[in-house]
Amino acid sequence: MYGPGDVRVEERDAPEIVEPTDAIIRVSAACVCGSDLWPYRGIGIEGTTWPMPMGHEYVGTVEDIGSDVTTVTPGQFVVGSFWASDNTCELCRAGYQSACVQRAGIGTAQAERLRVPLADGTLVPTPGIPADDLLPHLLAASDVLGTGWFGAVAAQAGPGKTVAVVGDGAVGLLAVLAATQLGAERVIAMSRHESRQRLAREFGATDIVEDRGDVGVAAIRELTNGLGAHSVVEAVGTQESMMQAIHAARPGGNVGFVGVTHDVAIPGMELFWSLANVQGGPAPVRRFLPELIDLIWKREIEPGKVFDLELPLDQAADGYRAMDQRDAIKVLLRP
Amino acid sequence: MYGPGDVRVEERDAPEIVEPTDAIIRVSAACVCGSDLWPYRGIGIEGTTWPMPMGHEYVGTVEDIGSDVTTVTPGQFVVGSFWASDNTCELCRAGYQSACVQRAGIGTAQAERLRVPLADGTLVPTPGIPADDLLPHLLAASDVLGTGWFGAVAAQAGPGKTVAVVGDGAVGLLAVLAATQLGAERVIAMSRHESRQRLAREFGATDIVEDRGDVGVAAIRELTNGLGAHSVVEAVGTQESMMQAIHAARPGGNVGFVGVTHDVAIPGMELFWSLANVQGGPAPVRRFLPELIDLIWKREIEPGKVFDLELPLDQAADGYRAMDQRDAIKVLLRP
Repeated sequence: MYGPGDVRVEERDAPEIVEPTDAIIRVSAACVCGSDLWPYRGIGIEGTTWPMPMGHEYVGTVEDIGSDVTTVTPGQFVVGSFWASDNTCELCRAGYQSACVQRAGIGTAQAERLRVPLADGTLVPTPGIPADDLLPHLLAASDVLGTGWFGAVAAQAGPGKTVAVVGDGAVGLLAVLAATQLGAERVIAMSRHESRQRLAREFGATDIVEDRGDVGVAAIRELTNGLGAHSVVEAVGTQESMMQAIHAARPGGNVGFVGVTHDVAIPGMELFWSLANVQGGPAPVRRFLPELIDLIWKREIEPGKVFDLELPLDQAADGYRAMDQRDAIKVLLRP
Repeated sequence: MYGPGDVRVEERDAPEIVEPTDAIIRVSAACVCGSDLWPYRGIGIEGTTWPMPMGHEYVGTVEDIGSDVTTVTPGQFVVGSFWASDNTCELCRAGYQSACVQRAGIGTAQAERLRVPLADGTLVPTPGIPADDLLPHLLAASDVLGTGWFGAVAAQAGPGKTVAVVGDGAVGLLAVLAATQLGAERVIAMSRHESRQRLAREFGATDIVEDRGDVGVAAIRELTNGLGAHSVVEAVGTQESMMQAIHAARPGGNVGFVGVTHDVAIPGMELFWSLANVQGGPAPVRRFLPELIDLIWKREIEPGKVFDLELPLDQAADGYRAMDQRDAIKVLLRP
């Protein structure tokens, strides 16, 4: 990305093993993330050095490994998270690999090859080389599914719970899938787009609320005996969506927020009176990867349905444009 | 309270049974709350009708009950919470009596007699008439202990956990006691006042941090292997204390905030990157009352030590002044 709205595909040096814990992946598929649209739209770009390589979601085949790598071998197909983590520190062991004391960002995955630091703690091999139709599903696990899953876990979705999901982008839709998989009794998708509503239903939504803001909150209350939802996932990241999520939760309920919260400020008094539990942040996708890969491998979930546009990598700019204009929910790029 | 800084004790009509679910209590002891100091200092008083009766913490003897009251009888000694609750609705049963669908505020407890709505769901009788020296401890259970306890529970204090407490007022000090009772491995009190530090140690604090803000956060990190505390209780309610609490928690840690958060706004990005679970609000004291009364009755805890000034009710104005000027931690008033 050369600047807001300016995405180019160009030849760069092939990545090489730098640390003995690195692996080099031949990327089979990558994609454009909702969070890639923030710089694309010129938001939060103070201090950015242009051009900025892009991409943090990836699946592919291991080509090379550093001398310390023991859990993946060349030829294996792997799924990784967007944060490299050692998976051994105290925070990783507590399930917060996205806050690993050694964490390193992945930021060059929209490419043919990718260097992944801390390969042992970051990459999870699939049981074999996947059939081609599994690729989108596995790729989704790398970020959007893992992020939606974390949102649902942070919101404590589970049996007997009514879960509301604010946001009908890929993460919100996959939070619907996650809440359903986690056993929620009722899953309310907040969406005003017919095609996204349809996908939400496919993923398990039992109710759709089209209204937003206070009217949307009132609709959630009406569906929950006046009390609010037990669990709310916030997957947008704006002031309005955040407050909508907090207000839609019942006292003692849980809000998981996974939208990147630019320019959001939560009034202390409103959080106080809500009595809601709020947890958000960069999803520790690595925590969930083994389980998600297993569900995908057994064909029990099809999270890759959020990809409604597939392009060759060299048309990445068209992919950004389609997502920016909401012509596509999520764009898959094939190198 | 006739206005900021203006507290007067005067004759008012005796309260009477209004609803069949009411009880009338002869108040044995009441007290001044840290939250009473907000209007005393002129904060958050827009729309207040003066004079405003004061007081929401109380213990006493039941004098009269409405026709529907079945669980307390005249002559019993009772402890109540500052929110009247039915203790039967879905929110009460989930442990959030402070959000009861029928909740009613108690606001006239600094008096000789008090009408308590929803007596069955609000009042908890003690096993007998307490010895006089138990009164301060039972009175503490009515709010400050219950609130500190909720803060510690919301922060998920427990075995193996390091708990940091921001604020050395009565609630903060009792959060130290609560964290200790809940089995925390290490309890860090953040205080720069020697007498309060001493009480924190008596209540179980293993460490004291005198610094505040970023320096205080750095001190907590130094004590926790660089990671931050598992649990943080915020018991002040200012922007600085709230951010200090969030920054002192490790990723995946828990912040319980029970300070009344005037003029606080939590930046979304900071909450996002903290990965902390945050829950606060008006404490559902009723949830904890049976357990707290039991601990006090068995003389296992002495929360009433936070009362360092006892005055007859007609000197209430002196009590407000002493707390406002931090000459007293907490003032007990005897009608």
